[in-house]
Order: sequence, then C-alpha cells, then structure tokens
Amino acid sequence: MSDHSTSVPTDVPDRLTRARAAAADAGVDALLVTPGADLRYLTGFAAMPLERLTCLVLPVDGDPVLVVPRMELAMALEAGVPNHGIVIRAWDETDDPYAVAVDGHRSARRVAVDDQMWAERVFAFAEAFSGAEQVLAGPILRGLRMRKTPQEVASLREAGATIDRVHARMGEWLRPGRTEREVARDVAEAILAEGHATVDFVIVGSGPNGASPHAEVSDRRIEAGEPVVVDIGGTMPSGYCSDSTRTYVAGGEAPADFAAYYEVLLAAQQAQCAHARPGVTAESVDAVGRQVIADAGYGEAFLHRTGHGIGLETHEAPYIVAGNDLVLEPGMAFSIEPGIYLEGRHGARIEDIVVTTEDGLERLNRTDRGLVVLG
Amino acid sequence: MSDHSTSVPTDVPDRLTRARAAAADAGVDALLVTPGADLRYLTGFAAMPLERLTCLVLPVDGDPVLVVPRMELAMALEAGVPNHGIVIRAWDETDDPYAVAVDGHRSARRVAVDDQMWAERVFAFAEAFSGAEQVLAGPILRGLRMRKTPQEVASLREAGATIDRVHARMGEWLRPGRTEREVARDVAEAILAEGHATVDFVIVGSGPNGASPHAEVSDRRIEAGEPVVVDIGGTMPSGYCSDSTRTYVAGGEAPADFAAYYEVLLAAQQAQCAHARPGVTAESVDAVGRQVIADAGYGEAFLHRTGHGIGLETHEAPYIVAGNDLVLEPGMAFSIEPGIYLEGRHGARIEDIVVTTEDGLERLNRTDRGLVVLG
Repeated sequence: MSDHSTSVPTDVPDRLTRARAAAADAGVDALLVTPGADLRYLTGFAAMPLERLTCLVLPVDGDPVLVVPRMELAMALEAGVPNHGIVIRAWDETDDPYAVAVDGHRSARRVAVDDQMWAERVFAFAEAFSGAEQVLAGPILRGLRMRKTPQEVASLREAGATIDRVHARMGEWLRPGRTEREVARDVAEAILAEGHATVDFVIVGSGPNGASPHAEVSDRRIEAGEPVVVDIGGTMPSGYCSDSTRTYVAGGEAPADFAAYYEVLLAAQQAQCAHARPGVTAESVDAVGRQVIADAGYGEAFLHRTGHGIGLETHEAPYIVAGNDLVLEPGMAFSIEPGIYLEGRHGARIEDIVVTTEDGLERLNRTDRGLVVLG
Repeated sequence: MSDHSTSVPTDVPDRLTRARAAAADAGVDALLVTPGADLRYLTGFAAMPLERLTCLVLPVDGDPVLVVPRMELAMALEAGVPNHGIVIRAWDETDDPYAVAVDGHRSARRVAVDDQMWAERVFAFAEAFSGAEQVLAGPILRGLRMRKTPQEVASLREAGATIDRVHARMGEWLRPGRTEREVARDVAEAILAEGHATVDFVIVGSGPNGASPHAEVSDRRIEAGEPVVVDIGGTMPSGYCSDSTRTYVAGGEAPADFAAYYEVLLAAQQAQCAHARPGVTAESVDAVGRQVIADAGYGEAFLHRTGHGIGLETHEAPYIVAGNDLVLEPGMAFSIEPGIYLEGRHGARIEDIVVTTEDGLERLNRTDRGLVVLG
C-alpha cells in the first residue's frame, strides 16, 4: 500500500533542467528512466515497478515525455506529472510501448538508461533505438541526487525525527521473553503509526543473531541481559527514507565484555561524526572509525563499510567505504554506522543518518546513543 | 520485514536441473540470476534487492555458485542454499564481486541474464565477461516457472485460501463514513494476521475511484450505496502470492445501472472460467469475456487485459491478453479478472486466481462473486 499523490516536490522542474544539462555534458541525447527512485526524483511520480512499461524519456532537446500504461494514467495525473512540463503519452494494452517511447527520438545516437532498469527493458530499448549506443544514467544522475537541496534535507530531517520517535518507544515492546518477531511486528506498526508511508525493514537481532548484521527477525526469544540490535527504517509520504540503529539491553545487566566493546563502538561513531565534513573523502570517514575499533583489538569484528547515502532510496551514493575517494560536499546525506560483531555471541551497531552542512555535520537521528537498558 | 528462512522448497534441485537443460537447449553457457523471483525459484533464497551484488551463476557444466556479500552469508546459509548442491562464494566489502562471479567462467561465449537484472549489473557483467554475448534468461526460465508443480499449486492454493479469509471479513471494515485509507489499513493488518508474510497491495476504490483500475487508496469517504472495488494481495511465507478482487456495496442499495453491468461482468468472468483449460490459447480466454461485455454494450469500459500469471511474483507469465497465442497447459496459474469501468462514476472487477488442471480449471478463490451488500 503506497500513496502516489502526496507531496509533489516543487524541486522537479529544476531537477529536470539539471538532469538535461548533465546529460548534454555526457554527450547523451536522451535519458530513459523507469520506475524507481530516479523516476520519482525527476517526475514526483512514485510509479510501481510493474510489468507494463512506464518510462520517462528526457531528451536534451524537446519536451520530456512520460510513457505510461493507460491503467496508470490517472495516478500519473494525480501525482501532478503534467505540472512540471512533462508530456504524458498513455499506451493501450495491445500497443508496443517501446515504439511509443522512441517516437520522435529515432535519430538519437546515445541514450542513457537508469541504473536499475530491468534487463528486459534495456534489451528492448536497444532494439527500439537500433544503432544508438546505450550507457548508464547513473554517472549523470548520481551527482544530482547526491547533493540534496534544502527541501530534500528538510524531508530527511522529518524522516529522522519520525524514526527517532519509534526508537524512543522501544521500551514498550522490547522485553525479555518476547520473540524477535513479536517485537518486530509492534515496531513495524509503530513505524507506520508515527508517520511513515511504508515499513522498509525491521531488524531485531538478539544475542547471537545480533552478530549477523542483516539477520532481520526470527522466533528466538529474547533473554534478560542480552544485547539486541534494532535497525529500522521506512519511507515517508515525501518519498524520503529513514534508517537508524540502536543496540539495547533488555532487562538485566549486559555481559561485561559487551559493555567494554560497546564503549569502543560509541567512541568510533563519535570520532567519525566529528571527522565527516565537506572537504574530506568518504573513505577517510570509514578509516577514522575503523582505526578506533582496530586499536581496541576489534578490527576483525567490524565486518562492513561505515555507511551508505540515503534519500529517495535507503541505500544510494555516496558509500562510506574504503576505496571511495569522493570528496564530501555540503548537502550530502549518509549513514554513519560502525558495528562490532562477535560471531556466535552478540553484536552492536550505532547508526545515525547525517547530512553535511557548509562546514560540518548535522545528525538527523538524536536518540540516546549510550547503552540503553530497557525494562 | 521478511523472513528468509521459512519453507525451503524441495523442488529446487529439480528446478536447477531443468534450468540447466533449458539453458543448454538455448545455446547458453551460463545463467546469471540476481535477487528476485527467478533467484528464489532456483535457490529457495529470498535475497533482498540491495546494492551489493548477490548472483547465482548457473553454468551448463559445473557447480552452480551463489555469489553473496559476506553480510548476507548467514541468511543464504539459513535459507538452505548449500542443501541444493549450490556452492557459496562470499565476497568482502572491498572485493570486486563481478570478478568473483566470472571466476572459472571466463571462456563463456553466451550468457543469459535474468529479465529483471539491473542495468548497472548487465553492463558490469558485459565487461566482466568481455566478448561473451548477452541474452535474456526470460525465454529460458519462463517455460519452467509457468508450469507449476503440484507443490507450487498447493502453495498457491494456500495463498488463495488466505486472501479469501480476508475478503470474508470485509464487513468488519468496509462501512459508509470511513475513508478508503482507514479501510485499507485494517485490510492490510488482516492480510498479515491471516497468514501472509507481506502485504503487496491494497486497492480500495470507492465510487468514481473504482473506475480507475489501479487507484489504490485515498482519503475519500465511502458513501452509502456506493460500489467499492477491493483488490488485495500479499506474499505467503512460501514466497507464493495471492491476489483477489471483489466489488462490494457498502450499506444501502447499489445504483440500478451498476447492478445491471455487474451482472454482465459476472457472466463474463463465468464464461472465461468455463472456457479456460489446457489446449485453448491465452488470448482466447480474454476474447471470450470481452465478447460478453461488448455484446452488452460495455466493450469500451473493459480497459485492461483479462489477467496475468501468478506464482513467486504477483504478475508473471502467462498474460491473458489479445496477441498472446500461448496454448495453456496443465499447471498454469493466472488471474481471470474482467472489469467494467464508467469514468467519473464507478467500476467493478471480479478476480479469481485459477490453475489449469489436466482437463479444466480449479479456482483458488472461492468467496461470493455475487454483488455483496455489506452492513
């Protein structure tokens, strides 16, 4: 269940202009964008990823055109697509939608397809645009989507505050004797009740399950004194995503070794947030935290990169990982989420979404990062 | 929130064998399958569609290999992937996963990518398998997935019974004075409560909104005597999907013209179910219903094809649409869902999932198809 009509972004015409300019710079005649975050970014339309072709054709010269199945026409109109100067072409059940899409663009020599376009569509467009070279739109659009406007930052701030209200209520649900799945059900309901449009993921990893970073939920019962990693997020009606992790101890005292490495983790996350700002590289943010954790003897236990960008997708550029020498700029939003995982025993992760300001960082998640003992 | 571990399908080894044989017939050296229904079909693993590469490499000769990010390894193991003779290769955050995937297959001349593989992966594999021709895996896998085994039919039967229990309770929620969104929230909860693992869609189209086949939900209040189209579905823990539509009237008498065309619709759906069986074409099933509706003067109001296949995806082959001359065989599962839509006024749709038997059809949805007046 999603809602296609809410919150038409006023940034859209400007985004189209910038995307066109970036496409021209890349020597591309037209961008082809199918349902997903790129389409929502460029049209305000949260089309569902269905088998009937919906595609924005954004030429460097000429009107942008949204090709939609007749059945989805009402939703495209309701989402305000024509308000942004986008022409809508609806196709009927027995039409060839690729022929509809290429009409007027048959002379294109170089077209860019969105990074998540399905292979069957990539192949169909290759045939429909016979002779044109295909490239990925990612390098063209990533630069735009990575630099959030103030409106986008406000949407992410609202998403952060919303997921924070869920974490703040964790004591209502997370108690010894309950299963991870029971807790997760309640958390999922609260994610919606607090204002998200959809629940994207609920990880409740208790005891040894907390040592598997993406373990989600099981029927395991939470025991008193066990650390529990709770990583949750959803999508707001605006389309922007939330994602925050806290590690709790449910009733009773945490194991002494856990408490010790939790302090290391907290110091690492703090060091990373203090370091990240415009002018430093993405990989340096990763390295700063990894060093703190390695110095304390837990280097092997920090299994994953430090973070991922966030916006209309939960995971998008920039990735905060070794090898990414991207220099951060103001308005970049990403997670800082180091973790320490002791296989078979327990684990911990602390995750905030942050956004770079002109000269530093704003954290969009603000609930207690210390070890919270519930119940 | 999903559960990766439930219900490992025992069909998997046989599916791998058949996929290999079909690939060999198509002159393909290896299939490349990323997260989605094809991957779940071939491995039993419901990997999430994340940015880190997970990919099954299924060569015609040699072991099938699942390439997974180290972070997802625990889930792949929990899903029982190695039980099916699939070798797992985990990659670390700074590895090149494409290099890991092509290792041992660099001599491949022709590789098939799954139809929904992301463009960025299609391009990355083209580079990693330099020189190999890329084709779509759809034509190879569709034939397998379209012919359901008895185990798959049993899973779809269970899904059908589960969504039927939700429809049977509609009177608890659908009442005049409530908004579509309020009703949809309750329906979504019931979809989970009755046994689905996820809610895939909830369309509650009241009055004029019912005339837009994919309208989903709004804050419109339902009025007494209005027709309301309720099209709902979810995914079971088995991975198999449900999808059923009924049109209700909430409190009060339906408009006379609506009652008249509803009878036409019911007759059309009945005629289609009586016609569909092994040996007839997919398009003939569409035509039979379209004729009934056109004969009654509503031809223009039946906006969409008759139906879609269903299985691990809500929409998959075979499509029941003009132009599809596929001859139905036993074990094909699809929707029969004609509709009549009067723009600006109201609409109706009746949808059952059906599966072809040796000589006829089994309906998997069985709630009342007559005009149900609630409250």
